[in-house]
Amino acid sequence: MSLAIKDDEVDIVIGALRSDLTTFMNEWRPMFSRFHLIIVKDPDLKEELKIPEGFNLDVYGKPDIDQVVGSSTSILFSGYLCRYFGYLVSRKKYIISVDDDCLPARDPKGFLVDAVAQNISNLTNPATPFFFNTLYDPYAEGADFVRGYPFSLRGGVKCALSCGLWLNLADHDAPTQALKARQRNSRYVDAVMTVPAGSLIPISGINIAFEREAVGPALVPALKLAGEGKCRWETMEDIWSGLCVKVVCDHLGLGVKTGLPYIWRTDRGDPIASLKKEWEGVKLMEEVIPFFQSVRLPREATTVEECIVEVANAVKERLGSMDPVFARAAKAMLDWIKLWQSVGSSSSRSSAV
Amino acid sequence: MSLAIKDDEVDIVIGALRSDLTTFMNEWRPMFSRFHLIIVKDPDLKEELKIPEGFNLDVYGKPDIDQVVGSSTSILFSGYLCRYFGYLVSRKKYIISVDDDCLPARDPKGFLVDAVAQNISNLTNPATPFFFNTLYDPYAEGADFVRGYPFSLRGGVKCALSCGLWLNLADHDAPTQALKARQRNSRYVDAVMTVPAGSLIPISGINIAFEREAVGPALVPALKLAGEGKCRWETMEDIWSGLCVKVVCDHLGLGVKTGLPYIWRTDRGDPIASLKKEWEGVKLMEEVIPFFQSVRLPREATTVEECIVEVANAVKERLGSMDPVFARAAKAMLDWIKLWQSVGSSSSRSSAV
Repeated sequence: MSLAIKDDEVDIVIGALRSDLTTFMNEWRPMFSRFHLIIVKDPDLKEELKIPEGFNLDVYGKPDIDQVVGSSTSILFSGYLCRYFGYLVSRKKYIISVDDDCLPARDPKGFLVDAVAQNISNLTNPATPFFFNTLYDPYAEGADFVRGYPFSLRGGVKCALSCGLWLNLADHDAPTQALKARQRNSRYVDAVMTVPAGSLIPISGINIAFEREAVGPALVPALKLAGEGKCRWETMEDIWSGLCVKVVCDHLGLGVKTGLPYIWRTDRGDPIASLKKEWEGVKLMEEVIPFFQSVRLPREATTVEECIVEVANAVKERLGSMDPVFARAAKAMLDWIKLWQSVGSSSSRSSAV
Repeated sequence: MSLAIKDDEVDIVIGALRSDLTTFMNEWRPMFSRFHLIIVKDPDLKEELKIPEGFNLDVYGKPDIDQVVGSSTSILFSGYLCRYFGYLVSRKKYIISVDDDCLPARDPKGFLVDAVAQNISNLTNPATPFFFNTLYDPYAEGADFVRGYPFSLRGGVKCALSCGLWLNLADHDAPTQALKARQRNSRYVDAVMTVPAGSLIPISGINIAFEREAVGPALVPALKLAGEGKCRWETMEDIWSGLCVKVVCDHLGLGVKTGLPYIWRTDRGDPIASLKKEWEGVKLMEEVIPFFQSVRLPREATTVEECIVEVANAVKERLGSMDPVFARAAKAMLDWIKLWQSVGSSSSRSSAV
């Protein structure tokens, strides 16, 4: 696949939650080796990282986090949240982020899926959030807009975020995972689509890509469950961050896509043991969704940073008294914006370079 | 596929725009023969219909339309609009409607697709319009809701309309069809999804199914282009009707699905010759979409009939002076509701039977 961008416009960010990345890196080598990698080691991880030779990469660990972030922030970059440190220090236009328990998938014909190329293609082709196209991505080869699609909307808008999917282990919550422990996702749906404006989506951080310069500050390391663990189903950070991104994209007229590319998720963790931890997150969602469905950003909020500050203030006001986790999230969002600006990644500064 | 409904709860409605239905009926025999068929002959069609033996069916022609509808209506049941007469006289819970230039499709494994069974499955399983599920239809075998999907929304809502898709000839407008005369749709996307609430969709009448008792009156034979012809790309009746249905479903909390089943569309008509006719429809859409995106129904409108009357009045008020086609559409919508009630198909009466 030929891409419309240069290799040095991309950072691949990997949050390392386990020390041995040998298999992960070797399997991804055909797709990753052209690009610069940022590996952020979970500060809770004690062992040395094992990383095979032959990659262009920078590794960041607890000392780097402490040095850049210091003690001036409420944000914890532990567990899955460590990857956000990579988003912060990147200076590239695009970021691709894949969980370290994922491997390249194969399509129904047996060909390896290049998840990097597909994610970049999703980002560099327009999105169509303001009217639904029944034939899926109208910009894909052999596809187009259907009859009745307004011509004035066929140009689309900038796609800011691409959310890929998962074969084998699907992204369930712990109750579902425990209930259907042996269920695996084998359905390969050959489609990319724009999530319509106004529609919320449970964005998963397992396999995503985004235009850092357009929406970077909206990917917020904010919601950390009290009993959060090192399995995806024990976390809600990406769900929260995804709701923030979607609300901001809707407000700013940017697009979010879901569908291809698939990655192959391997098993990790014990869903039964996770049940107790996850229940906290599941309950929180019942408060979180009505909030995000009804939050409206003021017209004056025209940058991503301003939008996130508005959302953070609304979280504090409307959810803050319900559960301390929300007050902490609001605080972390405000700290994140300050950090983003002070570390020099803010959209105004990067576009001035 | 075992269905959750009885065969006699379904009418298959076919608008006959050409006289020889032999191939059409024989190819569909395995899927159609269990059900009752309503064939409505386009009043403009002069020749006798050729229909093979072995089906349980009723045929309606111009005399029947004149007798039932009389001269008391502004609605023209000619061309693709003839099928709406079938919706009117049906007394069944579900209606399935397929264009007469379509044949059963095959899935990527070569198996014939039972479009009837899949459409019914779409209707009898809940829809999820209030939150996006990235793994597509959560009720499909082997599928579920993803992490982050609120539990309170996992019950879903009634699905009122299922819009299937098309292989081979896709449903393009005449300009696209003329520009890409040789393009064919070969992408089989193995997914069913709910169109999110608040998102409009260009619903095509080529391959649809709906719960007549729930939304029948919202499928309105209202928008007839001045230069309308007998090719799909020369019409907008289904697009208009689809916008009405979607707005009503959103208001009443009902679901609309798109995706599977596919049907195989054969070629008919000359896209170049159609270009001039279609341009009228393409231009109208630029007025139509902002209207439907902004129309709000009052809380007091709690039945489908009341909703359509509200939409019709808003059309008259906001679009009526732009183009005579809109004033006619508004009149036809009001006439349609009267007709629906007088012919005895109204939801209140049918549920009292």
